[in-house]
Amino acid sequence: MSIFNVGLKKVVDDSYEIEIGYELERKLIDDLRAGLVGTIKKFVVVTDSIVKELYADRIYDLLLQNDYQSDIIVFPAGEKSKTRQTKEFIEDAMLEKGYRRDCCIIAVGGGVVTDIAGFVAGTFGRGIPFINYATTLLAAADASIGGKTAVDTPLATNLIGLFHQPKKVYIDISTWKTLEKRQISSGLAETIKHACISSREFFDYLLANMDAIFEINDEICQNIAQENCKVKYQVVTKDERESGLREILNLGHTVGRAIETVSEYQLLHGEALAIGLVAEVKLSKKLGYCTDEDEALLIKILDRANLPVAIPSYIDREALIKKLYTDKKVKNGELRFVLQNGIGDVMVFDGDQYAKTIPENMAREIIMSM
Amino acid sequence: MSIFNVGLKKVVDDSYEIEIGYELERKLIDDLRAGLVGTIKKFVVVTDSIVKELYADRIYDLLLQNDYQSDIIVFPAGEKSKTRQTKEFIEDAMLEKGYRRDCCIIAVGGGVVTDIAGFVAGTFGRGIPFINYATTLLAAADASIGGKTAVDTPLATNLIGLFHQPKKVYIDISTWKTLEKRQISSGLAETIKHACISSREFFDYLLANMDAIFEINDEICQNIAQENCKVKYQVVTKDERESGLREILNLGHTVGRAIETVSEYQLLHGEALAIGLVAEVKLSKKLGYCTDEDEALLIKILDRANLPVAIPSYIDREALIKKLYTDKKVKNGELRFVLQNGIGDVMVFDGDQYAKTIPENMAREIIMSM
Repeated sequence: MSIFNVGLKKVVDDSYEIEIGYELERKLIDDLRAGLVGTIKKFVVVTDSIVKELYADRIYDLLLQNDYQSDIIVFPAGEKSKTRQTKEFIEDAMLEKGYRRDCCIIAVGGGVVTDIAGFVAGTFGRGIPFINYATTLLAAADASIGGKTAVDTPLATNLIGLFHQPKKVYIDISTWKTLEKRQISSGLAETIKHACISSREFFDYLLANMDAIFEINDEICQNIAQENCKVKYQVVTKDERESGLREILNLGHTVGRAIETVSEYQLLHGEALAIGLVAEVKLSKKLGYCTDEDEALLIKILDRANLPVAIPSYIDREALIKKLYTDKKVKNGELRFVLQNGIGDVMVFDGDQYAKTIPENMAREIIMSM
Repeated sequence: MSIFNVGLKKVVDDSYEIEIGYELERKLIDDLRAGLVGTIKKFVVVTDSIVKELYADRIYDLLLQNDYQSDIIVFPAGEKSKTRQTKEFIEDAMLEKGYRRDCCIIAVGGGVVTDIAGFVAGTFGRGIPFINYATTLLAAADASIGGKTAVDTPLATNLIGLFHQPKKVYIDISTWKTLEKRQISSGLAETIKHACISSREFFDYLLANMDAIFEINDEICQNIAQENCKVKYQVVTKDERESGLREILNLGHTVGRAIETVSEYQLLHGEALAIGLVAEVKLSKKLGYCTDEDEALLIKILDRANLPVAIPSYIDREALIKKLYTDKKVKNGELRFVLQNGIGDVMVFDGDQYAKTIPENMAREIIMSM
């Protein structure tokens, strides 16, 4: 019997920049020419059927004009495309066009595109670089920081994926102008969640500037993009592997993700999240961590953002409760929730626990009341 | 326009132990009880249809006897199972049985099992721990060190996967006794490759002890397992991400992998590799890096190990040449080969290049002559 020690301790630097601004396509090309991804000359633009014509084609054209080898791979827009099958489709298209390990993926789109393109990049040739060009408020709020990539399966949401950090993220606020109002609302849900967990001041700022946000006011939208990055960065850098603190970003998501799936994606992610935030503030209130005023304030801001605050009647409540158990926070078969400590803070349990075990009955009672 | 800096520099320690010995099932359980993977109490045994009854069932039973939650997931033995579909099958089985992020995979089997189980572990819940219990000489030689996991696709071999280090590797030499002679031969091909790239002394040791190896002589097999770990570790720790030096482990694999695929896996990996080693020593000889004696010596040891040294007649040579271009070392559309510098050393080009661009004509000439 003998032991062979494999020592693999090392310093890893996955740092990157997020650039927030307007019409950043040329800046992206300038960055590539300046060596953002070293000497790589092959770029696969991954996008969806809506963003293709709006923004991705332009980036693709610029790549070709600048003598890079490039192809554009397009999949149908929507959360339903976030599957292992779409990942395979992109992989096969890349392989067929001859791409190997010496290439880089540029994801142009919202959260679905950046999630899936990042996942493809993470396992293509055992990991190639990727760049996110975020074209939605939701992607700016949610997908820019954290390195989380994933797909959904019939049995679970976001449970197959990996951590893979982009080389750079571009948040192009000018793209928000082409978003439907419903998409802006959906994106705002994550922003409101960030305010709920971290800053009452940011919450009040959002509430006071809701009209300007929907008008895509330059200064206010830049501030929001910045603040979203700040909140998420503070959480993620303290807990990159999602072992503890990072769970607070899951506020509203236990119920939200379940509703999103049970609705068969009739509800957008942010819409489902909004309902989840309400469910979870009610739970916090029941446990004495939030007041009636907190609940009213949350409902008010969601209303102003044109987001739903009740579970639609077509949702099967029992299916919803069952779905809660597919949440990744479930431990030893028990439901766990992140809970608010008023608006702008979250509860911490036993010194370092950011999610609390909740009996199914209590969750059921709240869901049945909504 | 503004920049947000995401600083993600950190120290990562993926170190682990390889234990080489006999009948290590109980030792595995002892290690789990002693906290090898922390407080995790749920273990998914992943294995193939051959290894299940030979070894995996016993580990599964021991887990249950020791009050761990456990399930065993079995897929058909063979290289043909190394697909995204098998990965999905394992993922779906795990999800259906209620496994989430608080579990650990124990891969029991040869290289195909450890490759695919490691890949599943790398993306399940964005990364769960896994343990390799290697039951073949090939897995001991090839899969114990390096953290490489992957599946094959119709268009490429080993190009979809990731780096994910196991928590521990067990090399149970007693399992080699149940291997068919053909499998021992196949496993020896990687061992011979290790000798070819790193040590003439090891090469001579293998040649001198070939009979004892096939009799699974305890001391000699332990030495071989140790030496395989040592060679691979020295290469891999110097180049964990396979950017340069690690390419030398690809000796024989450019032609070998292509033959394996074109043969539709009629040839085992090691058999295809053996032919690849011969092709590449012929190439090295053509370029003046090896002598006729080196070639003869390589052919002699492969013969002694009951490995093929010529391309079977049923292999379509043109298909084989075309397949070479799916190799991951291909750069800018050109074939690149690792080349031997005699027996026990490899060529280095331009100070830090371990693979050399070879014109298709030269590769063709050698393939046509075999």
